[in-house]
Amino acid sequence: MNLVHVFSHLTECEVVLDPEALESFRRDESHLLQPPPLAMVRPRSPGALWSLVALARSEGFGLVPRGAGTGKAGGCLSAGPSVVVDLGGWPGAIQVSRPDLCLSAPCSAWLRDVKGAAEAAGLFYPPDPNSWPLCAFGGSLATNAGGPNACKYGMTRHWVLSVDALLSDGEIHTLGIASVKANAGPNLAQLMVGSEGIFGLIVGATVRLIPQPVERLTLLLPVDRFEDLIGLPGDLCAAGFLPAAFEFFDPAVLAELRAHGPEEARRLPGEALALLEFDDRGCTEEPFMAGLLDVLGPLAAHLRMASDARQREDLWAVRRMTSAFLKERHPRKVSEDIVVPRSRLKEFFAGLEALKIAAVTYGHLGDGNLHVNLLAAGETEPAELEAQLMALFRLAVSLGGTLSGEHGIGLAKRSAFLELADPGQLALLRSLKAALDPDGIFNPGKVI
Amino acid sequence: MNLVHVFSHLTECEVVLDPEALESFRRDESHLLQPPPLAMVRPRSPGALWSLVALARSEGFGLVPRGAGTGKAGGCLSAGPSVVVDLGGWPGAIQVSRPDLCLSAPCSAWLRDVKGAAEAAGLFYPPDPNSWPLCAFGGSLATNAGGPNACKYGMTRHWVLSVDALLSDGEIHTLGIASVKANAGPNLAQLMVGSEGIFGLIVGATVRLIPQPVERLTLLLPVDRFEDLIGLPGDLCAAGFLPAAFEFFDPAVLAELRAHGPEEARRLPGEALALLEFDDRGCTEEPFMAGLLDVLGPLAAHLRMASDARQREDLWAVRRMTSAFLKERHPRKVSEDIVVPRSRLKEFFAGLEALKIAAVTYGHLGDGNLHVNLLAAGETEPAELEAQLMALFRLAVSLGGTLSGEHGIGLAKRSAFLELADPGQLALLRSLKAALDPDGIFNPGKVI
Repeated sequence: MNLVHVFSHLTECEVVLDPEALESFRRDESHLLQPPPLAMVRPRSPGALWSLVALARSEGFGLVPRGAGTGKAGGCLSAGPSVVVDLGGWPGAIQVSRPDLCLSAPCSAWLRDVKGAAEAAGLFYPPDPNSWPLCAFGGSLATNAGGPNACKYGMTRHWVLSVDALLSDGEIHTLGIASVKANAGPNLAQLMVGSEGIFGLIVGATVRLIPQPVERLTLLLPVDRFEDLIGLPGDLCAAGFLPAAFEFFDPAVLAELRAHGPEEARRLPGEALALLEFDDRGCTEEPFMAGLLDVLGPLAAHLRMASDARQREDLWAVRRMTSAFLKERHPRKVSEDIVVPRSRLKEFFAGLEALKIAAVTYGHLGDGNLHVNLLAAGETEPAELEAQLMALFRLAVSLGGTLSGEHGIGLAKRSAFLELADPGQLALLRSLKAALDPDGIFNPGKVI
Repeated sequence: MNLVHVFSHLTECEVVLDPEALESFRRDESHLLQPPPLAMVRPRSPGALWSLVALARSEGFGLVPRGAGTGKAGGCLSAGPSVVVDLGGWPGAIQVSRPDLCLSAPCSAWLRDVKGAAEAAGLFYPPDPNSWPLCAFGGSLATNAGGPNACKYGMTRHWVLSVDALLSDGEIHTLGIASVKANAGPNLAQLMVGSEGIFGLIVGATVRLIPQPVERLTLLLPVDRFEDLIGLPGDLCAAGFLPAAFEFFDPAVLAELRAHGPEEARRLPGEALALLEFDDRGCTEEPFMAGLLDVLGPLAAHLRMASDARQREDLWAVRRMTSAFLKERHPRKVSEDIVVPRSRLKEFFAGLEALKIAAVTYGHLGDGNLHVNLLAAGETEPAELEAQLMALFRLAVSLGGTLSGEHGIGLAKRSAFLELADPGQLALLRSLKAALDPDGIFNPGKVI
């Protein structure tokens, strides 16, 4: 197709066809390198999107949405003849309604500005994917981004009240209303959140806000036996304590740190490590801390607690230092993102050992989302590495978990997903895809 | 069709064809009286459900799911040639996993037992529809039931991790996993929650649990000017206070009570009334209460606060007494269930006045869910009443609200929904329905 001709009538958008400029759209934060898209288009109006949908249909190319390109599953990369729809310039402003306890923003807003606008109104938008200082609001919605505080606050989907979505008719539809309570028919907004662009493109949303936490208590908890950590989230909750974050390091990470890590890491006691954060009102006061110590009992032997900002920073530095150290020592490591129910964690680690997969694991124990790091990935044959990853995913799925906790499927995990998902679930997804996108123009080749 | 013959080969289920016994399936808790179903079937195994789907397809009847029959939208009534599938005997037990902070239960469990099992483990399943002591878990899932504490905890959908659903292939599929964090493809569980049986039948689910609140603080807050209540939820949240419930009575309810109500109601001061409940840790202690008084300022002039069970009971009695009084004095009143964003409430009440709809309003101010009571409904011509309700729904929708906050659409609001919903949204719903239920066997004639 003659692209100059195809796009010549497109108004209210910028079109980039220059091959050199398109190079930068071959990557996101996954390990993938894809062919460049046919073009990159920056639409600035509903009319431009309408025309793009019509062109995609008549010319047979796909529309691949892109925000800030911080996704870790290749969802914004080209897989087949596609045009990248860069929504970074989509018009609109962040608006907070304090009486309605909600916030509306265009997909182009930075997530940090969304969170900041809520905070400026004394309110809180909880989703905190690792990329929150750098990612686009739209991308966080399309991928249902989650972060450390999902164990208390859930994922992005739990906060979305309504979305404005470009559907296959070329129009933008508002799905849902700006209210936490609404029950007029099936929830179509939730169908779009986390759909990774395969049902349509999200151009804006209204999300729910709650009070901004004002206190934070951080705990660094080395334990002598890893298995003592497994039941701790449940025990804490049964005693009334719901952590905002419950991170952990398995014995293999600590062994790696002790053998090769920086001085301060070598001094960490115990076999495994947890980092907990609470953000309840009163969590920095004596009765709260005393209650926590009661639950921890002998587990608290090596505990360090921090309630002021500087001390808390010191404790989080342990986590950051570990990630940085692993990345530096094993630059080609592969960090996976699976979920395993805590009640099955012992079986999971036994299974990992039986599979002879050399991995160190850390991540979000509070919600079972594990980042399994294959340190030797760079030195492993690609086919062998692929086999190891499939075995890892299969193990997680066999224990009632899944192959992605927060990154999504996109392109990176598509083949694994197609192999491991329940066939009935795949059939359901395919029928939804056919119903919502009969011509297959929305993010083709992703997820299913 | 010869029903005795049709059902003669159906095993593992009870079949009721006796017309007298079928009479009781003509009603739920809505105002509707529908024709009796062709039959009532109580399946006890996946095989029985599979056979039912095959029969429904070959014989051309619909499958109408029924739990405890406490719905308020007619969703479990017959609308066309249908068989009621009573899932009250569906096998399975309630299971709490404390390490995984989740609970699994069959659709046949009572919601009160689900909540009780969580509580027995020191945990909390928040959804509290008004019918919670009487309703089935499955019904609460299918209708995405909500109650007073939705303003803090959201609706049922916010707590559902996975569902087991009978789909059009006759099989039961588990959609989603038992983890608050999971991101492997679009969320199909959320598609089923609140779909009122039109995409399939929910036979079980796994829901998320959090710590059980141990303290409760209740406030009865009469105010001199109704409009002072409108911004209060936002002001409270911005000051760090998120009520678990924020109920209200508008001036018209209080006027009705003062003119005709019981002695204790006549003594209530102010123009409008709010009832707030907090369930945070520490909410019954001095610093919390002092903080609340700071936010309330002069609004607290007539405030009554209660932190022990007996005092709290007294305050909630005011709310219950009002409902009971209105019901007794106006037995044929119609209580509607709309949503209006708080920032538009002044316009809403002005609109109600302009429409000359005589109504008193109370409900859930914390989430904008209003129960507008048309007291004279019993003395109003049906056509006139219908016109009033349509005008009311239209007003709510025009202000960014919707025609159902918690009851759903079902049969009772179907025609209003079809008239008022965005055509693009309806087209989307219809394409989903066609994709998921191509033969139209699941709850035909409901929602769309």
